[in-house]
Amino acid sequence: MSAESIAKAANLAFSSLKTLSNTQRSTALQKIHDALAAHKDQVLEANKLDMDAAIEHKFSSSLIKRLDLSSPGKYDGMLQGILDVANLEDPVGKITLAKKIDEGLNLYRVTAPIGVLLIIFESRPEVIANITALAIKSGNSAILKGGKESYQTFKIMSDIVNETLAKDTDVPKDAIQLIQSREDVADLLSQDKYIDLVIPRGSNALVRNIKSNTKIPVLGHADGICSIYVDENFDIVKAKRIVVDAKTNYPAGCNAVEQLLFNKNIPVEQINEILQTLIAAKVTIHVTEQVKQILTIGESEYIKDAEEDAFDKEWLSLDISVDLIDNVSAAIAHINLHSSKHTDCIITEDKAKANLFLHGVDSAGIYWNASTRFADGFRYGFGTEVGISTNKIHARGPVGLEGLMSYQYHLKGDGHIASEYVGAGGRKHFIHEDIKL
Amino acid sequence: MSAESIAKAANLAFSSLKTLSNTQRSTALQKIHDALAAHKDQVLEANKLDMDAAIEHKFSSSLIKRLDLSSPGKYDGMLQGILDVANLEDPVGKITLAKKIDEGLNLYRVTAPIGVLLIIFESRPEVIANITALAIKSGNSAILKGGKESYQTFKIMSDIVNETLAKDTDVPKDAIQLIQSREDVADLLSQDKYIDLVIPRGSNALVRNIKSNTKIPVLGHADGICSIYVDENFDIVKAKRIVVDAKTNYPAGCNAVEQLLFNKNIPVEQINEILQTLIAAKVTIHVTEQVKQILTIGESEYIKDAEEDAFDKEWLSLDISVDLIDNVSAAIAHINLHSSKHTDCIITEDKAKANLFLHGVDSAGIYWNASTRFADGFRYGFGTEVGISTNKIHARGPVGLEGLMSYQYHLKGDGHIASEYVGAGGRKHFIHEDIKL
Repeated sequence: MSAESIAKAANLAFSSLKTLSNTQRSTALQKIHDALAAHKDQVLEANKLDMDAAIEHKFSSSLIKRLDLSSPGKYDGMLQGILDVANLEDPVGKITLAKKIDEGLNLYRVTAPIGVLLIIFESRPEVIANITALAIKSGNSAILKGGKESYQTFKIMSDIVNETLAKDTDVPKDAIQLIQSREDVADLLSQDKYIDLVIPRGSNALVRNIKSNTKIPVLGHADGICSIYVDENFDIVKAKRIVVDAKTNYPAGCNAVEQLLFNKNIPVEQINEILQTLIAAKVTIHVTEQVKQILTIGESEYIKDAEEDAFDKEWLSLDISVDLIDNVSAAIAHINLHSSKHTDCIITEDKAKANLFLHGVDSAGIYWNASTRFADGFRYGFGTEVGISTNKIHARGPVGLEGLMSYQYHLKGDGHIASEYVGAGGRKHFIHEDIKL
Repeated sequence: MSAESIAKAANLAFSSLKTLSNTQRSTALQKIHDALAAHKDQVLEANKLDMDAAIEHKFSSSLIKRLDLSSPGKYDGMLQGILDVANLEDPVGKITLAKKIDEGLNLYRVTAPIGVLLIIFESRPEVIANITALAIKSGNSAILKGGKESYQTFKIMSDIVNETLAKDTDVPKDAIQLIQSREDVADLLSQDKYIDLVIPRGSNALVRNIKSNTKIPVLGHADGICSIYVDENFDIVKAKRIVVDAKTNYPAGCNAVEQLLFNKNIPVEQINEILQTLIAAKVTIHVTEQVKQILTIGESEYIKDAEEDAFDKEWLSLDISVDLIDNVSAAIAHINLHSSKHTDCIITEDKAKANLFLHGVDSAGIYWNASTRFADGFRYGFGTEVGISTNKIHARGPVGLEGLMSYQYHLKGDGHIASEYVGAGGRKHFIHEDIKL
C-alpha cells in the first residue's frame, strides 16, 4: 500500500471510530489485551530474534535493554497498561462550555479526538501496545511506524492487533495500522491532508529530523535543555540535593539539568561548596571566566572552561555548564533565550523572587525548590504518557490522554437563521447566557 | 531593523510583559485608547490618503469599504473595543489543575500567554487596535505587519501606539511592534526561533501563501467549505430558511454554505421546492447528474452542471453545489473528505441521526437545524474575535482571547528530589491527590 492509501484509510476509519461508544472502544482494548496475553510465547520468540540481531550488530547496551520484552515484569506490565487505559474515564464528549445563544439555540463545546496520529518510534516495542491503547481509547486513528531494530517483535504484535480488531471488535481495522514495511517514512510525513499529528518517540536526532521534514504538527521535544537558577536567599542543603539529583539521577533523560546559574551575590564559599558536591558526584563542571575567577577548589579533571555553545547544548551526560547571573530577572531572560522551554527551576527561600521566576519563565515546567527530574507523566500522576511536549501550541509538558483530544462546537437550533439577528441584517439580540451543567 | 532583530526584541519584551499584573496591562490599554481618541482627526486624515489612493487604483468597492475608518461609528467602535478588552476577566494565571504530588510538593497547571504573535493583515486598519488590545491583555508580544493599502493609516496609528507604550505604560515598547516598512514578510515568517504563532487576517490567498511559507504554527483558515446535509426526516420550512440564509446572508463569508447534500429518499418534489427557493434568491445551483435527473424546475440560467471540482471549492458567491447522498453515514464520510473542517450542518427532526452527525463530522462546528452563518465569535458570545480556526491542534472555530493562551506547569517543593521516589531509584510513593481550588 502507498503512504497515501494508508493515510486515507486511517482517515476514513476515523470517521466511524469517532462515533463509537466508550464501551465499544474499551471492549476492543480488552480483546487486544487477551490476544497479546494468549500469544505471549510467540511474541517473546520474535523478540528474541530482534535481541540476537541487536547483539550481533553490537548495538549499545541501553538500546538492547529497551528492546528486551522478556525482562521480568515487562510483558505483564505492558498488558496491564492496556487494561489501565481501557479503565480510564472516557475522554470523548465532555462538555467544557455551554451557552444559550437564543431561545432554542444552544452552543456546546465538546471534547473530541484529533483525527489521525502518526507515531514513529525506534526501539521500545511496548510502545505498540501503549499507543494502540491510547489511540483507541481517545477515538483517534493511528499509524504506527517502528524502527528496524524491533522489526520481528513489531511484525508479530501488529499481526495480532490487526487480526483482533478485524475479527472481534467494532473498531474498524484501519483505525490502527502498523506499518511493517521498510518504506521511507518521508512518504507518510507528506500526507498532511490526512494525518493530523505526528508523535515521534525516540532520539533527539529522530525528532529533529521529523520536525524539519513535515508540515504536520509534531508533538514532542527535540532538546531538553533544563536550567537551575540559585537565588541569593537560598537553602544550601536543598540546593545541593536538587542540583545533584537533577544532574545525576538519569543524565540521559530530557529532564536532567544542563545549566547551573548562580546569583552573583551568593558567598563564594557556598558556590564552591555546591560545585564541590557536583564534582564529588563525578560531574564535570564547564565554567565561564567569571566562575573560574572565584573557584577555590584547586586543580581537578572535573573542571573545564565553558565553550561558546555551553549554554545552548544538551549534555545528556555527567556534565553541566555553570555561570554567574546578576539577579532573577537576568536569570529569566537568560533561560528564555537559552533553554529549550522544557523545565527550569529556581532555588530560593524568597517567595516574591520565586513568583517572579514562576511567572517570567516561558517553559512548559517551572519549578520552585524541586528537581527538574519530576517532569514526567508518571510523576505528575497522568498515567500513561504520550511524551513530553516543548511546543507552545496545544499540549505542553508531560502529555497524557488529554493531549490527544481536541474539541468541537455543537450548535443545536430549531431552524434558526443568522439574518434575523443584529449584525447580519436583523433586529433580534443574542442572549449569550451560560447554561449550568 | 532586520526581521531577526524585530523578532528577538519582541521575544525579550515578552519575558517582562509576562510578569505584569492585569492592572498594568489594562491600564496600558486605557492609555492607548485615550491617545487614539485624542488623535482621531490625524488618523482620519491619514486614512483619507489611503482611501484616495485606493479609489485612484480602482480597488474593489468592498476593499475600499473595509479600508474606510470614517464611516459612521467605526472609529468610536474601534475605541470602545479597546476598553471592552481591557475590562475582560484576566486570562493569565488561572489554575486549571492542582495536584498534591507528595507532602509539600504541589503541582499547578496555570494559564499563560503563548509568547510572540505575528499578525499579518490586509486592509482593515482597525485590526491594529483590536489586536494590540488582545495581545497586551493576554500578555503576548505582537508584531503587526499591515498591507500596503492601509499604509498611511497604519503609520500614524502605529506611531501613536508606540509612543504611548514607551512614555506612559509599564508594557515594554517592543511588546507591540508595528512594522511600517515594506520589506518582505518572508523574513518574518522565517523567525521560528522567536515567533510562536502567526495569525493572518485577510484573503484566502494570503492565508494559503503564509501557511506554505513558514514553520511557525498558523492560526486561521484558508478555505471555508461548509456543507448542509438534509436528512430524510426533516422540516421543509426550516430547511428552506436555513439553506437560503446560509447561502445568501453574506456569500463572501467563510461560514457561507457551499454544498447542499440531500438524502436520496427525500420526495423529488421537496428537493425541487428547496432548489426553487434558492433559485428565487438568485442562487445558481451546480447539480450532479443524479440531481439533474430528478429536476422538474425546467430551463433556467440558474441551473448548471456540477464540474469535477464542485465539491472541493469555496464559491464565495451566489453559487452552490448540489448532490444526492445515500444516508447520514455517507454524508459524514463525504463531509469529512470534502469539507474544510470549518462548519457543517444537518437538517433533520430525527434526534438519533442528528447525534450521529454531531459525533461523526470532523469539523470545528457541527450544527443541527441552524444556519452555518452562526459560526462567528460575536454570535458565539466570545467578544472580540481573533479569527476562525480550521486547525485541529490548539484553538478551533471562532477564537477569542482564550485562543491566545497556553498553559504551564508550576511545581512547588521544599527541596524534593526524584531519586527518593519509586521509578527513579527510591522507595517513596507519590500521593497524586487533587487539590480543591
